[in-house]
Amino acid sequence: MAADLDKVFNPDSIAMIGASNVPSKWGSFLLINLLAGGYPRENIYPVNPKENEIHGLTAYPSIAALPVVPDLAFVTTPAVTVTGILEECAARGTRNIIVISSGFSEVGEDGVHLERELAETARRHDLNIVGPNTMGIVSTRRRIFAVGAPVQLHPGKISFVSQSGNVGANMLGWTMNQGIGFGKFVGSGNEALLHAEDYIDYFGADGDTGLILAYLEGVDNGRRFIDIVSRISVAKPVIVLKSGRTEEGGKAARSHTGSLAGSDHIYDAAFAQSGAIRAETSQDMLDLAKAFERLPLPRGDRLGIMTLGGGWGVLATDATAMAGLKLARLDDDVIRVCDELLPPFWSRANPIDLVGNIYMDTHLSILEAMARSPEVDAMIVLGSLGTGTIIGLNVLVSQKLIMEMSDDALKGFFTELKDRNISLLNRAKELMLTYNKPIIFVEMQFIGEESLRDLEAGETVIFTAPEKAAIILSRMLGYRRYLERKGAV
Amino acid sequence: MAADLDKVFNPDSIAMIGASNVPSKWGSFLLINLLAGGYPRENIYPVNPKENEIHGLTAYPSIAALPVVPDLAFVTTPAVTVTGILEECAARGTRNIIVISSGFSEVGEDGVHLERELAETARRHDLNIVGPNTMGIVSTRRRIFAVGAPVQLHPGKISFVSQSGNVGANMLGWTMNQGIGFGKFVGSGNEALLHAEDYIDYFGADGDTGLILAYLEGVDNGRRFIDIVSRISVAKPVIVLKSGRTEEGGKAARSHTGSLAGSDHIYDAAFAQSGAIRAETSQDMLDLAKAFERLPLPRGDRLGIMTLGGGWGVLATDATAMAGLKLARLDDDVIRVCDELLPPFWSRANPIDLVGNIYMDTHLSILEAMARSPEVDAMIVLGSLGTGTIIGLNVLVSQKLIMEMSDDALKGFFTELKDRNISLLNRAKELMLTYNKPIIFVEMQFIGEESLRDLEAGETVIFTAPEKAAIILSRMLGYRRYLERKGAV
Repeated sequence: MAADLDKVFNPDSIAMIGASNVPSKWGSFLLINLLAGGYPRENIYPVNPKENEIHGLTAYPSIAALPVVPDLAFVTTPAVTVTGILEECAARGTRNIIVISSGFSEVGEDGVHLERELAETARRHDLNIVGPNTMGIVSTRRRIFAVGAPVQLHPGKISFVSQSGNVGANMLGWTMNQGIGFGKFVGSGNEALLHAEDYIDYFGADGDTGLILAYLEGVDNGRRFIDIVSRISVAKPVIVLKSGRTEEGGKAARSHTGSLAGSDHIYDAAFAQSGAIRAETSQDMLDLAKAFERLPLPRGDRLGIMTLGGGWGVLATDATAMAGLKLARLDDDVIRVCDELLPPFWSRANPIDLVGNIYMDTHLSILEAMARSPEVDAMIVLGSLGTGTIIGLNVLVSQKLIMEMSDDALKGFFTELKDRNISLLNRAKELMLTYNKPIIFVEMQFIGEESLRDLEAGETVIFTAPEKAAIILSRMLGYRRYLERKGAV
Repeated sequence: MAADLDKVFNPDSIAMIGASNVPSKWGSFLLINLLAGGYPRENIYPVNPKENEIHGLTAYPSIAALPVVPDLAFVTTPAVTVTGILEECAARGTRNIIVISSGFSEVGEDGVHLERELAETARRHDLNIVGPNTMGIVSTRRRIFAVGAPVQLHPGKISFVSQSGNVGANMLGWTMNQGIGFGKFVGSGNEALLHAEDYIDYFGADGDTGLILAYLEGVDNGRRFIDIVSRISVAKPVIVLKSGRTEEGGKAARSHTGSLAGSDHIYDAAFAQSGAIRAETSQDMLDLAKAFERLPLPRGDRLGIMTLGGGWGVLATDATAMAGLKLARLDDDVIRVCDELLPPFWSRANPIDLVGNIYMDTHLSILEAMARSPEVDAMIVLGSLGTGTIIGLNVLVSQKLIMEMSDDALKGFFTELKDRNISLLNRAKELMLTYNKPIIFVEMQFIGEESLRDLEAGETVIFTAPEKAAIILSRMLGYRRYLERKGAV
């Protein structure tokens, strides 16, 4: 049975037990982050017997004294106090509790004992406990940003469960920096009761979630994990980064969260069987997340590549073959378009080498011809976005030396350059919609990272290496093949 | 015999044959880039029979009419004119010519013929020809930035030869964005006479070059390549990105530069035999370049890891084992320092989990203890730099809500936060110098890319994934082992 976690992520009222005015305390910055994120202040109830007011909110001496029954409570008080607090919550009718407090099984024997007590109490009263030793939750649509790091994200369809608060926080930081929308996040902490798979189960049924990420160190009930993920993965991609892949990593995982890491081969088999997409590295998980969020799945392995220069085309061709994909055959229509637009010595083969052609209309026409070709399942576009940057830099340098353009003309020129890229990206979005084929842009490093994020605008994918584009498309195809085998597409 | 390329990269005077006032022409933007980069304008001689002045410089009708014998000439005129121009250069005494012009072997039969003519003429007159169809050269110390893209780099010890102008230009863009210093660059173009290995040979003897990069699609004379690289690699690392690894990539390379790619196994063997460090991907080459530029080589495989949180430690442990490295044993001195500074339940094993400890003194003391330990050959530091960012974000959020600090206090606070990181990075630099061991920092994504570059300040290495840190250290160790086998250390 799936736990009912609705009020964990969609509470209409929140108690902060252990709320504090002392800035260095969790009870302070958790409350501040919640306030800063925009959760309605009138629905937040700090509990602290020693204060009348905390960060401008009325503080209450106890849970019993609260004017409402809060849907959700955060607890940041010392470990020894937590079981008593759960009793008070149960008595008041609050069934969902996020235990931030540390000092449980992660600190050794005494903590193990406290955690067992906590679990028994929770079971007796049928409470949902997140943690203990969790770094908190995010629920973007409800404007709940209740984690240690002050993240504020915009709504999106990715939801994420992490067995490490630290890895979780950093990935939230990444999504913030990359302009990626976010749905829900939970650090599962020590998992005294609720386990990673429970959150995956909840995200599977959650209408706001379209894509599920999980950072795992160990799963206790493998059968249950496989059952849950199998059920969900036919409808939503489940991307898993599992550490403890090596014997040494397994030992580190045990000392970190006490999880029984188990043999990595078993995990590999479990992920394959249940349709989970396994990320190879932390960076791979982030790249997969972005691509699955924004791109349609390729329906075959035939890649069309358009490149501003030959060298990149060669690198992309290697990457295509090494990722297990094929170069698409260019059909007559594509060849006709290229014959019209490119010099007579053009490659006449995929990759299509634009030989430094800077006319955006050429790029657009060839991209469109490839997108509509029945021979092409997915596309990589190398260097097209960077041409504008290089032209712009050239003009700026010229401007300093020979002063040809008025300020207005210069401004207009740069607006035009930006419009070039926007027109290409917009066309790509339309083509992806029309033909249901993914397009990945690659710019090595002429455009700075932050400008690339601006261009992506949370809707397209721009990578900085052709190898990455090919490998990610191949993983997406793997998932598509899984869906086909399951009859889900 | 090594070609004498001194005047290619260190010319005291430069002719620009085909210089132009028409902004879209190579003859215009190459000249502008050269001027903008700071090469002395009085030593630049535009040649164009139709103009009296080009971008403010006196233009000359012919090479014969120049008031000096230029050390170096760039040629941007149509392919059919080039052989005649070489004759004129030879007659005038100019022996070093960079042929930017395209339209040679890369466009088919007619071009092949022209290129053969060009090569014969050059041999007859004993000329050094870069190209044809090259995107130009960079020689930072002489302030020569004569490439298609308007790069301006600061001096450094990396020199780079690329068989693709496009790949070359983008890697220059990357070094610019990353704040990496640069020595010399050359796009080898069609290699009618001078080949990639000639430039490697020259860089090997060049006092300004400490690290050589090469992007290769194919080497015609394998024996000569191996001889040259073997001789150089015992003194300077030679990092090679070789495309055409797959059959498909080989075909693409042939169609791009006409190079005989050959079997990738042969290249692998040649690189191993000659001590070249093979980059796996374009991104790998960039990462290797940065690490080899800034870090001492590890002398063994024992890695010390310090992490702000356990999850990263587990990922880094996996990465260590997968890269063929070991976790260092913590000796009594390291354990004593950790016992003093960390809570009693600390991991007592490598990775050292700081459990979110935010005191920079703790980070510094533990890093120093690891650096001086005879058990540790290299270090990875995870999350230490990010703590300040998270504290800062928390304070900013608090500030908006509860307005505790004056503007001055806030400013002082942020200066302190920045100083934390600078003190850590400075200490790391000292420790690397004192103990001759590499230290790599890892921050996932809480600090933006551009701020990471500011922190690196061109002197330290900060990666965004633990997997990358481990793999790069392992490649550096591989090179160190090669040097040991050769008796070069």
